[in-house]
Amino acid sequence: MSTLLRSTVESIKPLDEEAMAQARARQDQLTKPPGSLGRLEELSIKLAGIQGRALPEVKDKAVVVMAGDHGVVAEKVGNWPQEVTAQMVYNFLEGGAGINVLGRQVGARIVVVDMGVAAELKPDPQLLSKKVGLGTRNMALGPAMTAEQAVMAVESGIEVVNAEIDKGLDIVGTGDMGIGNTTASSAICAVMTGRPVAEVTGRGAGLSDERLAHKVKVIERALEINHPDPGQPLEVLAKVGGFEIGGLAGVMLGAAARRIPVVIDGFISGAAALIATALAPGLKDYLIAAHLSAEAGHRVLLKHLGLRPLLELEMRLGEGTGAALGIFLAESAARILAEMATFAEAGVSEKDGADG
Amino acid sequence: MSTLLRSTVESIKPLDEEAMAQARARQDQLTKPPGSLGRLEELSIKLAGIQGRALPEVKDKAVVVMAGDHGVVAEKVGNWPQEVTAQMVYNFLEGGAGINVLGRQVGARIVVVDMGVAAELKPDPQLLSKKVGLGTRNMALGPAMTAEQAVMAVESGIEVVNAEIDKGLDIVGTGDMGIGNTTASSAICAVMTGRPVAEVTGRGAGLSDERLAHKVKVIERALEINHPDPGQPLEVLAKVGGFEIGGLAGVMLGAAARRIPVVIDGFISGAAALIATALAPGLKDYLIAAHLSAEAGHRVLLKHLGLRPLLELEMRLGEGTGAALGIFLAESAARILAEMATFAEAGVSEKDGADG
Repeated sequence: MSTLLRSTVESIKPLDEEAMAQARARQDQLTKPPGSLGRLEELSIKLAGIQGRALPEVKDKAVVVMAGDHGVVAEKVGNWPQEVTAQMVYNFLEGGAGINVLGRQVGARIVVVDMGVAAELKPDPQLLSKKVGLGTRNMALGPAMTAEQAVMAVESGIEVVNAEIDKGLDIVGTGDMGIGNTTASSAICAVMTGRPVAEVTGRGAGLSDERLAHKVKVIERALEINHPDPGQPLEVLAKVGGFEIGGLAGVMLGAAARRIPVVIDGFISGAAALIATALAPGLKDYLIAAHLSAEAGHRVLLKHLGLRPLLELEMRLGEGTGAALGIFLAESAARILAEMATFAEAGVSEKDGADG
Repeated sequence: MSTLLRSTVESIKPLDEEAMAQARARQDQLTKPPGSLGRLEELSIKLAGIQGRALPEVKDKAVVVMAGDHGVVAEKVGNWPQEVTAQMVYNFLEGGAGINVLGRQVGARIVVVDMGVAAELKPDPQLLSKKVGLGTRNMALGPAMTAEQAVMAVESGIEVVNAEIDKGLDIVGTGDMGIGNTTASSAICAVMTGRPVAEVTGRGAGLSDERLAHKVKVIERALEINHPDPGQPLEVLAKVGGFEIGGLAGVMLGAAARRIPVVIDGFISGAAALIATALAPGLKDYLIAAHLSAEAGHRVLLKHLGLRPLLELEMRLGEGTGAALGIFLAESAARILAEMATFAEAGVSEKDGADG
């Protein structure tokens, strides 16, 4: 393991139990029946443990959207042309995509990263170029990338999030764009969870039954040819992953190493989390699952990670759109904890001691 | 039925099908796979139908929080002292309650209304006084209020929301405060849905098993003594309801009459919706269920209303806290529809025509 990746993994520490105890104690003093804000209360305590302070803050927010192309599209696993990846990057930069709209609403800046789009993109001051290659190779014929490229992708993600943290960051969401990336993510999910390919493969951006069956066969072939070892997460990434998936794994590791909570989006971010948590099991405590995607396999994936999604709105767009909504709820949780009055402050009577 | 109530009920019209068709058509032109924003897409179409415009707006927002006391607390159905209702009204006015925090976050003004708190409250320019009485009477001994009071409560709610609409309003959330009001709401729910009291009665703000069983018995006694007729919703409100519940029913009716979407909160707002939709069945299309409350009976109630909650965060605070989160999602839905670029605008290729 190279230096940056190793030092990042080693920097991920357990949650701050003292901060969590303080947050929990404060929740019970706020002017509401104890526990009555349900999962928002739990979330506030988790944020306290991650940030290491009794009153966590969710003010500086970013969603990192990483784009990459996939050689496996040559197998006709999807029904959108590959050029859409680059076109959508331009759409992100113009502010017209779903994640732009939700980012504006929740006050999160959008960090757009070219991790490996299969085209030379026009330079743009808003676009970070961390290009590992012009798309991955076709995993149905051999490894999607080299071992060096896999490390480069993950370390690029660490660098991207470190730069954002240096600018000021309380929370980060992960987002993806890449035609063909549900195919790579299903492959990763099958390997890392040990579930059959058919169980963790879905319709992506809208496949028919027939083409879904074809997609499953392509993934099965990729796994036969590459036989990735689930005990070697970087090998899994190299053989059946993607540049943006590796980059997102790096964002997660880099954020956790500096005690920044990570709100993960849907299926592709989840695949990145499978790789990243295999590299650093302690990372799991730093992840907040924004939503349950409509993509088949996401439920299996979250269960494997031991994460419970906050939302279930049948979304399956990616881009970090679910993560943006999750960031909003994290802000709600942090504000509740910090801004609500206590019983003593408000002069409100507490309930009878005898019961409940 | 008196004049204001009758004219309000008669003003509630069906959703605007033309606006909905336009919104649906636009969703399919936005730069995302069709349907990939799931329930946010459905919600944007519903908002279009309610507001009667292809691009609905969610800018001017309010949560109406109505407070009232309940004579049935004499039966020891809860474990919080009655003075908490008035104390929490002051907390709302000071900005220290959960709904104040979430209202600030989502940009919704909080409209605090005394519908019948069992104390003379200190005058405050922020507090609307629509006091129908100093708390209801004990429904376990007889009707909670007179038939005239029931109508007054509902019409006060209509007046409150009309005044807010006159100030500028795109969406309204409903919230409640009232020690003992889960008891009244369970009674209403049992009558209106025909389900057994035990099935729709929960722990409110934190009852033990023993006190929950007692609460069920008190409600059963109230229903025996009053035998409210589910075909007469105002009679149900008078016999086993509450002033704030009647007021919230009025808010819902008044908003729908002027094509303003209503985001309903948890169990108490749901009970108000049971009364209001029985008065005006067309109201149902104007209601958005924010969340599934942790309070037993809420699931039954929403199913009866034919509404599917957006969130399930195990919240049970009331005050409109769930509604505030629902308003946020409604704003997301409206912004997505209005602000996202179309394929043509962004120069993004559409998917191959050959497949689903």
